[in-house]
Amino acid sequence: MSTNNELVQLRDKVDEINLKIVELLNERGKVVQEIGQQKIKHGIKRFDPVREREVLDMIANVNEGPFETSTLQHIFKTIFQASLELQEDDHRKALLVSRKKKPDNTIVKVKNDIVLGDGSQSFIMGPCAVESYEQVRAVAQAMKQQGLTMMRGGAFKPRTSPYDFQGLGYEGLQILREVANEFDLAVISEILNPNDVERSLEYVDVIQIGARNMQNFDLLRTVGQVNKPVLLKRGLSATIEEFINAAEYIISQGNDQIILCERGIRTYEKATRNTLDISAVPILKKETHLPVVVDVTHSTGRKDLLLPTAKAALAIGADAIMAEVHPDPAVALSDSAQQMNIPQFEEFMFELKDFRAKLQS
Amino acid sequence: MSTNNELVQLRDKVDEINLKIVELLNERGKVVQEIGQQKIKHGIKRFDPVREREVLDMIANVNEGPFETSTLQHIFKTIFQASLELQEDDHRKALLVSRKKKPDNTIVKVKNDIVLGDGSQSFIMGPCAVESYEQVRAVAQAMKQQGLTMMRGGAFKPRTSPYDFQGLGYEGLQILREVANEFDLAVISEILNPNDVERSLEYVDVIQIGARNMQNFDLLRTVGQVNKPVLLKRGLSATIEEFINAAEYIISQGNDQIILCERGIRTYEKATRNTLDISAVPILKKETHLPVVVDVTHSTGRKDLLLPTAKAALAIGADAIMAEVHPDPAVALSDSAQQMNIPQFEEFMFELKDFRAKLQS
Amino acid sequence: MSTNNELVQLRDKVDEINLKIVELLNERGKVVQEIGQQKIKHGIKRFDPVREREVLDMIANVNEGPFETSTLQHIFKTIFQASLELQEDDHRKALLVSRKKKPDNTIVKVKNDIVLGDGSQSFIMGPCAVESYEQVRAVAQAMKQQGLTMMRGGAFKPRTSPYDFQGLGYEGLQILREVANEFDLAVISEILNPNDVERSLEYVDVIQIGARNMQNFDLLRTVGQVNKPVLLKRGLSATIEEFINAAEYIISQGNDQIILCERGIRTYEKATRNTLDISAVPILKKETHLPVVVDVTHSTGRKDLLLPTAKAALAIGADAIMAEVHPDPAVALSDSAQQMNIPQFEEFMFELKDFRAKLQS
Amino acid sequence: MSTNNELVQLRDKVDEINLKIVELLNERGKVVQEIGQQKIKHGIKRFDPVREREVLDMIANVNEGPFETSTLQHIFKTIFQASLELQEDDHRKALLVSRKKKPDNTIVKVKNDIVLGDGSQSFIMGPCAVESYEQVRAVAQAMKQQGLTMMRGGAFKPRTSPYDFQGLGYEGLQILREVANEFDLAVISEILNPNDVERSLEYVDVIQIGARNMQNFDLLRTVGQVNKPVLLKRGLSATIEEFINAAEYIISQGNDQIILCERGIRTYEKATRNTLDISAVPILKKETHLPVVVDVTHSTGRKDLLLPTAKAALAIGADAIMAEVHPDPAVALSDSAQQMNIPQFEEFMFELKDFRAKLQS
Repeated sequence: MSTNNELVQLRDKVDEINLKIVELLNERGKVVQEIGQQKIKHGIKRFDPVREREVLDMIANVNEGPFETSTLQHIFKTIFQASLELQEDDHRKALLVSRKKKPDNTIVKVKNDIVLGDGSQSFIMGPCAVESYEQVRAVAQAMKQQGLTMMRGGAFKPRTSPYDFQGLGYEGLQILREVANEFDLAVISEILNPNDVERSLEYVDVIQIGARNMQNFDLLRTVGQVNKPVLLKRGLSATIEEFINAAEYIISQGNDQIILCERGIRTYEKATRNTLDISAVPILKKETHLPVVVDVTHSTGRKDLLLPTAKAALAIGADAIMAEVHPDPAVALSDSAQQMNIPQFEEFMFELKDFRAKLQS
Repeated sequence: MSTNNELVQLRDKVDEINLKIVELLNERGKVVQEIGQQKIKHGIKRFDPVREREVLDMIANVNEGPFETSTLQHIFKTIFQASLELQEDDHRKALLVSRKKKPDNTIVKVKNDIVLGDGSQSFIMGPCAVESYEQVRAVAQAMKQQGLTMMRGGAFKPRTSPYDFQGLGYEGLQILREVANEFDLAVISEILNPNDVERSLEYVDVIQIGARNMQNFDLLRTVGQVNKPVLLKRGLSATIEEFINAAEYIISQGNDQIILCERGIRTYEKATRNTLDISAVPILKKETHLPVVVDVTHSTGRKDLLLPTAKAALAIGADAIMAEVHPDPAVALSDSAQQMNIPQFEEFMFELKDFRAKLQS
Repeated sequence: MSTNNELVQLRDKVDEINLKIVELLNERGKVVQEIGQQKIKHGIKRFDPVREREVLDMIANVNEGPFETSTLQHIFKTIFQASLELQEDDHRKALLVSRKKKPDNTIVKVKNDIVLGDGSQSFIMGPCAVESYEQVRAVAQAMKQQGLTMMRGGAFKPRTSPYDFQGLGYEGLQILREVANEFDLAVISEILNPNDVERSLEYVDVIQIGARNMQNFDLLRTVGQVNKPVLLKRGLSATIEEFINAAEYIISQGNDQIILCERGIRTYEKATRNTLDISAVPILKKETHLPVVVDVTHSTGRKDLLLPTAKAALAIGADAIMAEVHPDPAVALSDSAQQMNIPQFEEFMFELKDFRAKLQS
Repeated sequence: MSTNNELVQLRDKVDEINLKIVELLNERGKVVQEIGQQKIKHGIKRFDPVREREVLDMIANVNEGPFETSTLQHIFKTIFQASLELQEDDHRKALLVSRKKKPDNTIVKVKNDIVLGDGSQSFIMGPCAVESYEQVRAVAQAMKQQGLTMMRGGAFKPRTSPYDFQGLGYEGLQILREVANEFDLAVISEILNPNDVERSLEYVDVIQIGARNMQNFDLLRTVGQVNKPVLLKRGLSATIEEFINAAEYIISQGNDQIILCERGIRTYEKATRNTLDISAVPILKKETHLPVVVDVTHSTGRKDLLLPTAKAALAIGADAIMAEVHPDPAVALSDSAQQMNIPQFEEFMFELKDFRAKLQS
């Protein structure tokens, strides 16, 4: 008999076994689903490590090789995982933020007829930190002239050092609100403390959760309980999975008005302040139904990169571009190097609107 | 004239100019110090970006080369920075956590005669999460037999997913306290929410601030205001500078009983859960006066690496080693793969005490 | 006298000193330029650490405060650096790859009338590894139908394990050449070994230097001496500065036909194979005069991200998009998960050409 | 019937199925081993993606749920992987560098009676770059006084910029050899170019492969063919797995005299030049039978950290410590900030020998 024949016969045997394994796995799947139903009915946790331990021990007891016990146990852990997912799929189907759970885009209602997530692409601009009424008004006026509607500005500033400028607090929120009312803009501002969330509602149209607070679960739960959109920034070195789960903390409390914001991740590269993870945009759009914003200022930390990265972000499907503008960046109380002044901002908007028009043609 | 001579002459000229620059810089330094005194007297912020701008503009106006204006401005920014530091040195000297400010080690009084930072090297052990009275008691008993005095255990668990086990909360703290009292141990447990700090004081001897909360500034300030030691973990991808500043948030509120904890940083390497940044220990010991603990469990996420990394941590001067122990790790509700069981823990302690004795010989 | 007056007077003093320092620095700059001329004339190295040491020692000797000696030395190091740059500017002006040295784009002549860097945006496609004549021909045919002109394909494959498929070597190059001739395509293929460069010239139109070899300086120098364009990939975790210097190794040997290729960097994020550093494109275009290509396949490692990242790359100004195509990716000998099959490739090209047309409208 | 009973019955069903799956997997394992034997006999590649594709297609055809086809395919990929490993285990057992393959430590014979890997812990010292006979001699003399036997020094320097000092080349090797002969030391020096390997053999006792060349496979193969120990440095951002495979490239050519060197990895942290991955030492010692050296100079880039990190490295089981010494670091032609001068070196050795003695007590 030729080698070929021997190999063919051996492979036929393998095929036969494969078929039986598939059958057994699906049979097992059905029983596991029934177990899942029982667990729901009686409020028992799905994940049962003691039980898994028993199965792993059983394998150790009966295994006669040639596979090593650890290898078989590894295969069974894959089966356990698949079975657990089967149960989870049946109940919760998937995370509430997941597109599997809700295929349509969530449209976040920022204020009146200002929305994010409807397929248009917009701009969120404003100073890094609120410093004075005049400063904010100068920016707002320039924004209004460009037809923009969403203004960002920091009143509570999370700062590495306790001795750095920590923002004007409620005085800053009040300035933002006053100026926004004058020019009919929406206000986006960061809140750091769960205890400030309630009081901030009268000032802001969107609550921002900053990168450092992406896993401040208490704050996430608090903003999940109010009736106000939330802009959630990705953590400094958060994985996309952690980012999505942070959004789930918010939505699990009832608030689905969530905007995700990619703002660069921490890497070894120092040519830019952070590394803009542009691929995160399509991944987040695919895995969730939430709008995704790209903060080009914090991603790059370089004024000369704002326009090219904003173009890339629009091209890849971001729902909005966020960037910082200051009437006199050189004297800004924070992040002076990376803010555009007003003529630069006008040039930036001119180029970007032109680019957006091409994309939409 | 030979080249050599020409070069020598040119260098003499440079030397002369260098001397004049040194004189002028110090003259400038004295005036700047006087300005600083005026500012203190009248409560004016030291950093004055508008003023710096004026100087930079002046340079642009008068510069006739050969240096480019941007180069001269860069040199002046270095001078500004040095001048600002001169003013800061005069007042605040340095951060409160800095060893320049306080050369002697801070000895943290954990409970009764249990201290950290006195030059001895100790161990902080316990389960990842508190699951039951029996579980905690089993660990505590084993710890007592080893002569250990500090037990860690999580009652509030920060978890990536909102659907993962979030800890037993106050019930968990109560179990820890009860068992600790029985065996006369100190309790170290993480608090996530500023609003829980006050109530937790009756249960814990040391408040732990977790890696995800290292820049939750509100929480830092809150634990800075209580009379209880704080164990502050380094953030997932925090720089050492950010870590030190996070401790400064606590001490700036009055609480100097701070323990720093290196627990691995996030890198590309996946052979370990995180990458233990062992060099951080001597840097933190040099730059601050605070005790430094190494959490070998979270640094490595691998049971087989606990002993060698603990030895390295003792050798490099850590004040304590932290690790996780569970009576039955396979069924643990969190981080099962990385917790030692009790026989493993006993073996671990045996080896480590032997090693410590050698170091102290 | 009011505080204000005192402050104003003190500031006037500082202004006066500032002016003197500016004058002295420029005076120093002129002498340093003369020294530089002497050094050129006599072939002496510009950087002279012994001399710097003398100056630093002098400062230590004469300093009477208030600045600490280390602070003054730091300021002088900034001055040294600026002075060195002044000398370097005078001679070499800047790196040969630098746009300061040559403001106009370098147009790389790939083959006949196929060029990169002329402002058009093109596509480089092909299989990861050359496996057979049939495989390459199938891809080439599909490419030709799309009007493409540049085919990539690996004959020498750098592989992590010595036991993985290492490519067909010269047999692979021959297949590429044969098929390319049939369809009038240019061939881009990686060369690993300096000793293979010469012989490869008859097969390839562009020599590719892979990410692992970005700092294989010997290989860089060798391809710098041949009359053939080079596509240089960014190293796995190379900084942009290191990348630019690697290109300088090539051009310094005489070959200015260099194409830079961003292909993702290694970060902690595992949702993608690497993290596409999209900001690198405008930085490289700004700092060098060389064309910049984005390899979307290796950047992402995910077929579902090829189209969106390719759009982002075109939007940000990449000169070409590189991606992998295989007639049957599931059976590919390397990187099977990330290669498009031919219908996917056709869909990809359809979408991308449409997008490019919009950008050019 | 109570829930409990229902759950118990369902679990019994699962147990039964589990048993059958284990049996089938082992049955499959045996057939796969036979196939492996056939493949060896006839020189067929073990990995057969076309065949795997057929099985995956079969699953898609027969699957009736409840598992999704992709889930079953994922489980089968785990089974394929296990089966492939079974075949590989049978033949090659494991990598040649693997401790599974060879449980005993490899003892590298550096020169005469100088060895690495025998359980003692030694020191490899010397200047970063060879600059002159006098410089090398001064270091060698100081080393000799300390009883050291292994001297490192760079003659071929891989430098980021083509215009930086590239080393003295063969002149440098000659100086090293001459001085080493005078003091009876072994010489360790980096070779960059495969074409230099042969000629370098008369000068060096250990060929060093630098971090940038860790995946220069051609160079690895070349040094795998000579009869001379090789010190292989971990790449700047190489995973441990990649590092081990790089060593396998050398050993697969016949040379098993390999020393692995951890020298820090590239991370976001800038307090140190690189981040010393201390955990890599026990992992490498566990997974391979090769000696492991820690280069504390390149890991930290800070003189003040050399001693503490060297202690940590000895404590964790490194076979040797590598560090840089220079008679006058301030004037060194490369890496001046991080080299010890001779009195610092003597202090360093004094402390370290004392520490080593304690460990060995």
